[in-house]
Order: sequence, then C-alpha cells, then structure tokens
Amino acid sequence: MADSDPTPELDDDAMRRFPVPDFADLPEDLQERITEETERAGFTPNVFSAFGYKPSHFRAFFAYHDALVDDSALDREEVEMIVVAVSGVNHCYYCNVAHGALVRIYARDPALADQLVANYRTADVSEKRMAMLDVAVKLTESPTEVTEEDIALLEAAGYSEEAIWDIAAVTAFFNLSNRMAMFADMRPNDEFHTLGREKRE
Amino acid sequence: MADSDPTPELDDDAMRRFPVPDFADLPEDLQERITEETERAGFTPNVFSAFGYKPSHFRAFFAYHDALVDDSALDREEVEMIVVAVSGVNHCYYCNVAHGALVRIYARDPALADQLVANYRTADVSEKRMAMLDVAVKLTESPTEVTEEDIALLEAAGYSEEAIWDIAAVTAFFNLSNRMAMFADMRPNDEFHTLGREKRE
Amino acid sequence: MADSDPTPELDDDAMRRFPVPDFADLPEDLQERITEETERAGFTPNVFSAFGYKPSHFRAFFAYHDALVDDSALDREEVEMIVVAVSGVNHCYYCNVAHGALVRIYARDPALADQLVANYRTADVSEKRMAMLDVAVKLTESPTEVTEEDIALLEAAGYSEEAIWDIAAVTAFFNLSNRMAMFADMRPNDEFHTLGREKRE
Amino acid sequence: MADSDPTPELDDDAMRRFPVPDFADLPEDLQERITEETERAGFTPNVFSAFGYKPSHFRAFFAYHDALVDDSALDREEVEMIVVAVSGVNHCYYCNVAHGALVRIYARDPALADQLVANYRTADVSEKRMAMLDVAVKLTESPTEVTEEDIALLEAAGYSEEAIWDIAAVTAFFNLSNRMAMFADMRPNDEFHTLGREKRE
Amino acid sequence: MADSDPTPELDDDAMRRFPVPDFADLPEDLQERITEETERAGFTPNVFSAFGYKPSHFRAFFAYHDALVDDSALDREEVEMIVVAVSGVNHCYYCNVAHGALVRIYARDPALADQLVANYRTADVSEKRMAMLDVAVKLTESPTEVTEEDIALLEAAGYSEEAIWDIAAVTAFFNLSNRMAMFADMRPNDEFHTLGREKRE
Amino acid sequence: MADSDPTPELDDDAMRRFPVPDFADLPEDLQERITEETERAGFTPNVFSAFGYKPSHFRAFFAYHDALVDDSALDREEVEMIVVAVSGVNHCYYCNVAHGALVRIYARDPALADQLVANYRTADVSEKRMAMLDVAVKLTESPTEVTEEDIALLEAAGYSEEAIWDIAAVTAFFNLSNRMAMFADMRPNDEFHTLGREKRE
Repeated sequence: MADSDPTPELDDDAMRRFPVPDFADLPEDLQERITEETERAGFTPNVFSAFGYKPSHFRAFFAYHDALVDDSALDREEVEMIVVAVSGVNHCYYCNVAHGALVRIYARDPALADQLVANYRTADVSEKRMAMLDVAVKLTESPTEVTEEDIALLEAAGYSEEAIWDIAAVTAFFNLSNRMAMFADMRPNDEFHTLGREKRE
Repeated sequence: MADSDPTPELDDDAMRRFPVPDFADLPEDLQERITEETERAGFTPNVFSAFGYKPSHFRAFFAYHDALVDDSALDREEVEMIVVAVSGVNHCYYCNVAHGALVRIYARDPALADQLVANYRTADVSEKRMAMLDVAVKLTESPTEVTEEDIALLEAAGYSEEAIWDIAAVTAFFNLSNRMAMFADMRPNDEFHTLGREKRE
Repeated sequence: MADSDPTPELDDDAMRRFPVPDFADLPEDLQERITEETERAGFTPNVFSAFGYKPSHFRAFFAYHDALVDDSALDREEVEMIVVAVSGVNHCYYCNVAHGALVRIYARDPALADQLVANYRTADVSEKRMAMLDVAVKLTESPTEVTEEDIALLEAAGYSEEAIWDIAAVTAFFNLSNRMAMFADMRPNDEFHTLGREKRE
Repeated sequence: MADSDPTPELDDDAMRRFPVPDFADLPEDLQERITEETERAGFTPNVFSAFGYKPSHFRAFFAYHDALVDDSALDREEVEMIVVAVSGVNHCYYCNVAHGALVRIYARDPALADQLVANYRTADVSEKRMAMLDVAVKLTESPTEVTEEDIALLEAAGYSEEAIWDIAAVTAFFNLSNRMAMFADMRPNDEFHTLGREKRE
Repeated sequence: MADSDPTPELDDDAMRRFPVPDFADLPEDLQERITEETERAGFTPNVFSAFGYKPSHFRAFFAYHDALVDDSALDREEVEMIVVAVSGVNHCYYCNVAHGALVRIYARDPALADQLVANYRTADVSEKRMAMLDVAVKLTESPTEVTEEDIALLEAAGYSEEAIWDIAAVTAFFNLSNRMAMFADMRPNDEFHTLGREKRE
Repeated sequence: MADSDPTPELDDDAMRRFPVPDFADLPEDLQERITEETERAGFTPNVFSAFGYKPSHFRAFFAYHDALVDDSALDREEVEMIVVAVSGVNHCYYCNVAHGALVRIYARDPALADQLVANYRTADVSEKRMAMLDVAVKLTESPTEVTEEDIALLEAAGYSEEAIWDIAAVTAFFNLSNRMAMFADMRPNDEFHTLGREKRE
C-alpha cells in the first residue's frame, strides 16, 4: 500500500453473498489488522474484507489462523502445502488461489500450487511431506477412516508428536475456512493468481 | 464441582492418540477456564482436557466457540441442532455425545439428539429449522453444490442475513471440531451419555 | 406390562407413513406375539406395531429375525453389535435407538451403542469383534468389494465357518430392516432411548 | 427334472465361499421344497443349494420371499423389475442373472433385464413403473434421502398404499438377498443366462 | 447381410436423443465402412448408425477404436474384457450388451459378460487378467488414486510396458464411448443380447 | 521455436511412467505434426511428446481432438471451458494446466481457468454457458443420471442440436484424455502455468 493512501478500500466483490463493509465502519482493532495486512501484501486480501462482515468472527478466525502459523512444529511451507491440498479436494476457489500464491512463495516452486490443487499425489515433494498430505487429505475426505496407523505413518515419516497434532489442526481449520469461503462465495484478489509464478533459481 | 475439590483432574482417557496434560502444568488462563467449566458442568468436559495439549490452540478453539455462541443471531438451541446434525453426518463420536446432551437440554427434548445423530430428516423440528439443517448438512457434505438458492431458501424460511452467516459459521466450525476430535480420538465423558434424557413436561 | 392391562395398545406414532393397525384387528397369531413381546419388554416395541400393517410380512420378518437370534454361532451381544454398526452407517433412527438399547443391555456397556452408532472404529471391543464389525460394515457399504480375504480375516480372528455365515446373515437382514424402518419412518419407543444407560460394575 | 431322476443334485459350484450340502443330508422339508422347485424349473436354482448350508435360514429366507410374491399388491412382473433394478445397482451377479431370467419371462420382454441391470432409466417401461423403480433404487442407494415426497410420487403414479409398502418390502428384501449372494459368492445356473431371451410376439 | 440386400438400413431406434441419418445421405467413406461392418456381423451395429449423425466424429471414433484393436499388445479377448468391466461400472446399456456379445465370442465363454457387467471380481479369469481388470476399473472410478504401484502390479502380473499402456488406452477410450452412448441413449441391436450364449466345448 | 533450431527436443519429463521417445526416432508424420505444434506454441506441448510413445495412438488421439475443435457448433472458448471444468472434477494435473492456459487465452480472462478448476459454479460465465458446464460435469461424474431433461435444458439455454452433441463429445473425449494423462503421469510444460495470466482490456 502506498504511503499516500493510508486507508485501505475493501473490494465490494470480495464476497458475493453478503455485503462487504466499509473500512471506515469497522472497529478499530479490525482496521489496524487490515491496515497491517494491506501494507504487508500491497493489497487487502479479500478474506479480511469478507470477515469484516462480523467483527467477532473476524477476531476469532484470524486469531486461530495466527496460532496455527505462529506456534507450529511445521514449517510455513508445510502449512501452506496442507492448506492447498485440502482446498483442492474441497474445491474452494478462494483458498486454492490465495494459498496457492503462498505455497508458491514459501516453497519457492512456481508449479507446486497447481499440482496440489489438481491432485496432491502429483506434487514434487519429499516422501515425508507426501505422508503428511496423505493424512491431511484422508482427514478431510474420510475422517471416520483415520486410525492409529495414520499416526504411526506420520511418526515413521519423521514427524514429532506435536507436528502430527499440527497437521491435523491445519487440516481441520481449513475445513472450516473452505466452507466459509465457499458459502459466502469469496473471490480471490487478482494479485493472488500470479504471485510467485516466476521461476526461482 | 464440589467446593471441597477445587482442583479439576483431567481424565487420561479424554483422548487416546495424544497425552492429556496434568492440570497443574497448564498455563493459568487455561486453569481458570477449565475450573469455570468444571464448576458449571459438575465435571470437566474432555474437550478441555484434550485441547490442553497445546495451549495456543486451546485459546483459539474456545475463543472461536465462544464467539459463535455469544454473538449469534441464532438461539442456542439452533446452534446445538446444527452441531449435532453436522457431527452425525461426519460420524464424530465425541461431538455426537457431548453436544447431544446439550441439544437435549437446550431444546428440552430427550429424543432430539438421537434423531439428529441418525438422520436429521427424522428430527421433530419446525420447517424453519429443517431448512437450516438442510443447508448445514449440505455445506458439510457437498460444499461445492451450495448456491444462491440455498441462501434464498433460508431467507424464505425466515432467517435474517446475519443468521444465515451464523448457520454457515457454526457448520464450518464443527467441521473443524469434528476432525480434531476424530483425529485425536477424543472420548466423551460418561455424564454426557445420560444428561437431559429425562422427559420434560 | 402390568397384569391389569392385558391388551397392548399400539402407538399411532409407531410409524408415520403408513397407518398403524388396532391391536384388536390383528390376526390371532400376531396378537399373541405382540402380547408376549409386550410382557417381556414392559411396552410394545414399535416395530411390532408397524409390521402389523401387513400380517404376512410381520410373520416373515420376525421369523427371519428369530432364526438369526435363536440359531446362531454368534452370541447375542455380537449380533446386536453388528445391528447397531450397520444401522449407524445406514443412518436408521429406529434401529440405532431400539437396538442401541439391546447392545447396551447384552454387552453390559452403557457407552457402546453411542460408539457403534457414531463410528464402529471407536468402539471399545476386542480385536476379534472389531474384525467382525469391519466385515459387516464393508458388506453394508460396498458389497462388491468383499472378497475371500475378508473371509480369511474373520477366520484368522477366530470365527468358525458358521459364525462367518451368521455375520453376513445378520448384516444382510438389517440392511432389509433399516430400509423398512426408514421407508415407513418408524419411531423408537421413548423407553429405548434410556434403557441400559446405567453404569454396570 | 425328468421323472427318472427324482433326487436333485446340488451343484458344488452353487456358491464358492461355503460348502454346498448334499441333498441327502438336508432336512425333509428342505428336500421337499427343493424337489418342487427343481420340478418346476427343470433344474435346481443355486440359491436353494446355497441356503441349504443353514436350514433355519433357508426356511426364513424362502418364507419371506414367498410372502413378498404371494401376498402382493404388485404384479409379479413389477416385483421382478424391482429385483433386477436393485440388484443392478448393488452389482449382484447371482441376482442379476437369475432374476434377469424371471423378468424376461414375466414381462415377456427379452431386452428388459439387460436394461435394468445396466441402468433402470433406460428400461422400456411405463411412467408408472419408472416411478416405482426410481423409489426402489433411491431406497437402495440413499435411504436417508427418502421422504414423504417419494411416497407422494408413487401415489401420484397410481400405486395404492399397500403397493407402496410392497415396493419398499421387495427392495428391502433384495438388499438382504444381494448381500447374502455376494458374500457367499453364489453363482447362477447356466440356464438362467439364456432363459426368456427368445423374442415374443 | 444377404447379397440380395446391398443397402444397409439404419435403425431409427439406434439412439433416442438425436436423429439417425439415412444411409443414403451419408458420405461415401461412411457408407463403405457401414457396409463392411454389416456384411461381417449380419446386421448394422447401432453404434455405426448413431455416429453417422456427425461424420467427422464417426471417422475419429472408429479410427481410434481400430488403432486400439489392431495395434495392441493385448489379445482381443483382453480388450473386450476391459471394455465390459469398464462399461459395467459406468452402467452403459449399449456397451454392456454389444461388447458383452464380443467378450462371449472372443473368450468362448457364455457367462463371462454377465460376470463382468455385474462385478468383474466374480469373473472366471486368470489372476493375470484380474490384475488387468483391477487397474482398468480403478482408472475408471478413481483415476486420482492410480499410482506407480498399479503399474508395478501389472508388471508383476506379466504385462509388458506396451501392454500396460494399452490397458490404460482401452479403458480411457471406453470412458469416452460409454459417455457418448449414454448421452445419446444408444440402444443395442437385438442380436447382441443373444450372440455367443451357446455353450462351447 | 527459433528458426535456428528446427529439431524439437522432447522433454524426458513429459510423462513419468513411460519413456518419452527421441524426436529423431518418430515416424515422419509425427515429426511433422510436432514441428508444426512447436512452431505455433514456441515450445513442444508435452502431450505430443508423451503420445509419441505409441504412434498409432498419437494419430488417433490428435485426429479425434482435431475433429472436435475443427468441426464444432461450439466456439473454441466453449470447448476449452468444458475441457477445464471436466479436468477439474477428474483432478487431472496436465489438463488443468495446459487447457487452463488455453481457456485463459481464448476467453481472454486471466481468472477463468482457476475458477473452472476449483468449481465451475464459481466461474464468471453467462447462464447459457453455465448450463453447458452443468451438463458436461454431470456427464462426467454421474452419466447414469443424464436424462432427456438435460437435453431440454441445453435447448432452452439456446444450444442447437448439433451443439448439444458436441458438448457431449468434448466431455467424453476429455474423460479419455484425463485418464491417459493421469495414468502416464503427464506433466505440463512450465509455459502453460503462466500463459494468458496478464489482464486483458
């Protein structure tokens, strides 16, 4: 966000089934968070605009998200891989695209998001991370079938007990997030479609 | 909880795939919340013991839960109906039983939880609430197929715009909650199986 | 049933999509069976009232049921475990609740029914019986995929050839029973919701 | 069966996962029923040989079958149509072929069985009977979704209340029958593959 | 086709959702191909009449088919087995019946088609061919789940690299073919229902 | 392709489960087609390298593709929309990405491919084209359920009879194509990930 425009404007098209609030009408703590995010990204990611609809849910949603990212036995790249694999099988347009950008950036791999969205089994990741994705997708698609064997597989792949909890926690949270985005018909910002697509050395 | 026993003890069997912490080892704010819940319920609901495993997630999980319950255009009875219908199709043992007790209590109906767990279409609820459950279960099982028509059905049934958001929010959160409980193999306290089963006049 | 009331009354709400007959209008053999069942249980289980709608089917249904229970290489506890696990995946309200009571009583375990209804994999049963439930649920949900390997698994778990036949027979019968109860919208008696919920020593 | 051979021989290949008994070892009532069926058909349908494995189940199975066929508000052609449509979606080799022969014979239509096995929606039947098959297949594949509307559709199509019960009863029974045949790997007699395939005028 | 009737007549009922062209109106190359097929079979298989609707697609469809059959590391019997197993799980009436006749003829087995249509796991085929059918059906029903392990299984069963490609190619083509036949509601010729049903020595 | 390099090089990583041939070893007609495609695109799309494995299939596959594109009542934009919606539900990495580029280019819309891959219901297309996609996805996912009503919906949306055939034909062909690409594990060229992502005026 340029210094000359200190007030973010929330995109009316951030979601299509509920009204997007005006920035000026939001409580101060939401304004602060949105301003920070806008400065960091250079634009206001639409999920912030959309959750502004209900400030108590905005606070809860991003606090949970922050806990998952800031206090994790997984690295950020792994977190975003799970997010995109889960969003791919849940068919969430917003999360595929917004977190697709993040996975490209954190993993420094311009093709990874498209692999994870399509079919995580095609992703160019280590065996360890493939085991992580196997369990994340199983917990998403058929949670009744998760058993001690899945825990054992993750241990065998090299994940700590806390990392295994975190794999489940990220998966579970994006089963929430995908459903909110799909229900409200949230739309990813144009920027997300292209971020991180340049080839890295 | 009796005054004579001010320190809750967390049940080692609260979950089976991660260790349950000792109450004494928890951060103070978790101890306070657990003490309050234990006093209110007369026992420590196992979900609190289980989430004690990772305090940052404990705080985020219950803060989100509180936002959904405390700032809602739905009444508590409706919230718990959604929870049990969603947990029924997701096949979550912990949530079926723990929230089954809550739905019996809030709705003052000893049979309602068993109906919602089995097949929400058999539940003795109003047409308005059946519409709410139709959308909650659809958003759970096939979120890609949710469209503007579903929003319109809820409006026609008499739900406000904010209530419609809240129906989605509760549904989404328990898609998170069910997966955490199923992954960790959380076990409901014995008390939940029988609470609220007496017939009301 | 108290001696002072020798004539059972069939609950009009025993099923909702077909009329429940008057006891007095039933053929004598049905009256006898219903009287016996009522004396045994202390109330008339609604499935008897419902099948009274068509006496030839009443006779066939309960004769088959009796053959499964009376001439079985499984113990009664195992039979009822299969019934509730099958009814759980078929989402049958009547059978979940009525046979839930039976499984609590025969297994002397107040939590078992709620486990089997939710997800049989959470049930506190022996490995042998878990193998039995694995096959019963597989035969219910994806019968094309049952192979010689499933038979071999049951043998390895310790089931005799006849017991293996009986596992299939009970499973198959409750795939019939669930569908009749669901189609007619049979409703469990209030008593079934609470029977067997007291803790056993 | 020719008069010169009064003793039926049961085909060892009638089922593959349980031993087929010797005719001579069967209880007298089973011998009588099998002799009758053999005389009627000109061969012993393998389902009789297979159920001979457990006489109490033989009696119960065929008594239920007889009740469905002998005391029905549906004509026999309709019964067999339901059987083959249900067996088609359940993918039961024995029932597809054995009841495929029966539907060809009763409906006097050499192509009908192959239509019903593949996709009942391609069957050359009246709108009334298509409504019957719609409900039979729905009750088979997704019984939770059967509602009052399905009953109303059948009434609107011209079925009596009792016929509607019978549609469900035949559907339910073949959900049992398919699972027994598939579990035991019953094999249809060669004769069933070709019976009724000649064109009728 | 008898010499005395050199002009094939296309059956108006070859498909039900698009008009069947007149033979005389078809381009010369289509007339030639149809004449050849009619002479070979003794009747005009309805798939030729149906694809006559759009000559450019007729040419492409049969050229692809010919490539699969004429340049294959599989024998024709194997090709037709795959076709019927795939058509069985896709529930394609036309292909079940038309290719059912071919599989009976090429495999010289009058029961095989009915086995493959119902559930390929019941088919009386070698272990090698069962492995082939396992992969063909998996690629049809859940292509995302096909992995290197499936390739390895086919190699272990004795298939060459090119044969493995061909298994996929036949499977893929009939996923096209089934959908065209089902969309257009193509109807098999009466002859296909009975061809090859006589017992072979 | 630069003039100075008239010989295309086929990428060894074009597919992972079968060897990619050397350009020099291909039959002349394949060399010509590949040279043309390489000149047009500026790189050799990997599907050409992959199908080079079996020249007879190469010819059949691209001839069918050409017929669908060159002789169509649909415009090219519509063809590619169907391709990406179908590939999205089939979860085909190669086709999502390669045809995603084409749909961006032909529709001049940088976001459309990501919408179609995720959930075609989120796509910013006309009602007419949404009807087209509804039927294409239904024919892909549940072809048994396609009925005359679907044809009628397409007519009502404004599609001609031939266009309706073509919608089915493109859908059917990419059910083939997706399965070949997924089975062989074809990998999209890097170029496809970014082509057409610039915003159009």
